[in-house]
Amino acid sequence: MTIRVAVLASGRGSDFQSIIDGIGKGEVDAEIVGLITDNPEAKAIERAKKNKIPVFVVERKNFAAREEHDKAIGKKLDELRVGLVVLAGYMRLVKDAALLTAYKGKMINIHPSLLPAFPGAHAQKDAFDYGAKISGYTIHFVDESLDGGPVILQEAVDISGCKTADEVSEAILRKEHVGLPKIVDSFSKGKYSIEGRRVKYAGK
Amino acid sequence: MTIRVAVLASGRGSDFQSIIDGIGKGEVDAEIVGLITDNPEAKAIERAKKNKIPVFVVERKNFAAREEHDKAIGKKLDELRVGLVVLAGYMRLVKDAALLTAYKGKMINIHPSLLPAFPGAHAQKDAFDYGAKISGYTIHFVDESLDGGPVILQEAVDISGCKTADEVSEAILRKEHVGLPKIVDSFSKGKYSIEGRRVKYAGK
Repeated sequence: MTIRVAVLASGRGSDFQSIIDGIGKGEVDAEIVGLITDNPEAKAIERAKKNKIPVFVVERKNFAAREEHDKAIGKKLDELRVGLVVLAGYMRLVKDAALLTAYKGKMINIHPSLLPAFPGAHAQKDAFDYGAKISGYTIHFVDESLDGGPVILQEAVDISGCKTADEVSEAILRKEHVGLPKIVDSFSKGKYSIEGRRVKYAGK
Repeated sequence: MTIRVAVLASGRGSDFQSIIDGIGKGEVDAEIVGLITDNPEAKAIERAKKNKIPVFVVERKNFAAREEHDKAIGKKLDELRVGLVVLAGYMRLVKDAALLTAYKGKMINIHPSLLPAFPGAHAQKDAFDYGAKISGYTIHFVDESLDGGPVILQEAVDISGCKTADEVSEAILRKEHVGLPKIVDSFSKGKYSIEGRRVKYAGK
């Protein structure tokens, strides 16, 4: 069943684009019913408009508390009747317990490191500064922990040849853009079960 | 130049064996001049005897302080005129500053995870319990930090199919046994330079 997907993004939205492209090529069975962003300057907005995807800007400054901001986003997700929420370069933590509960097992994040290594907002630079030879990305369910929910997919990326943190970012992004659309597609073709920290997939 | 290697091990010594085998096959240009262990029951001892490698048991209980234990090991390494010290399943931290300084850039450790993920003595179980899909091993220089010295080599291992922590251990060990002998050999063929956390190799 074609899954209704909302993407949350704060920046340039290249992961978002990878899902758009996957759908365009017929490789991803999904409909992106909305881009939700906290940043009115996000380049992701242009990508959405270009592809006739509705854009919803929900700025943090319009809400007193972080939880209220989350609740406004949750309301929008409910209205859109979303089956999957993809956090793709969304630079805020989801903190509202009601939102986390409502979308438990339906909200995923892509993070540019092999978690639990290099959590947080500067994963690629942290990996570079550490002198890591291998990094990668992690797609995981979102829960109350920071970059800590159950892992759906990890892929390693050899960064031993990277000379700058930006090169690390690019190398990892190239792999993200292959892996993320596949995971989105998998949600329309089967079910994930979460047992503690273990994620199992029953595909078609 | 054939490098003189001492191996420190506390357990079964399968990594130690991989170096022995590499030398036997002519793939590793090194001479193992001693096995040093803190554990008189270590299976590694049998492997050493079988291969006529001198064994030195230096038990922790014979020394009041950890640093004294380290110093006794350092004295043995000096006597053996060692060019490379390999910690291969050595379950103690090297804490003596004099020993660390004397063998800076000449003492390496192999750790069964992609550091900084899963440091400590239970890396494989920790990776399994986390639900990691990718783990691996890290060969790094030893310094005063716990599992934190500059990284020489990392290799990723897909553990998504592993059903137990033991399966994770075995999967990672299989890769360790390929990578470790190569790194030992590299020390006889070129020089590593350490700049901050970055390790560079000038091979022949």
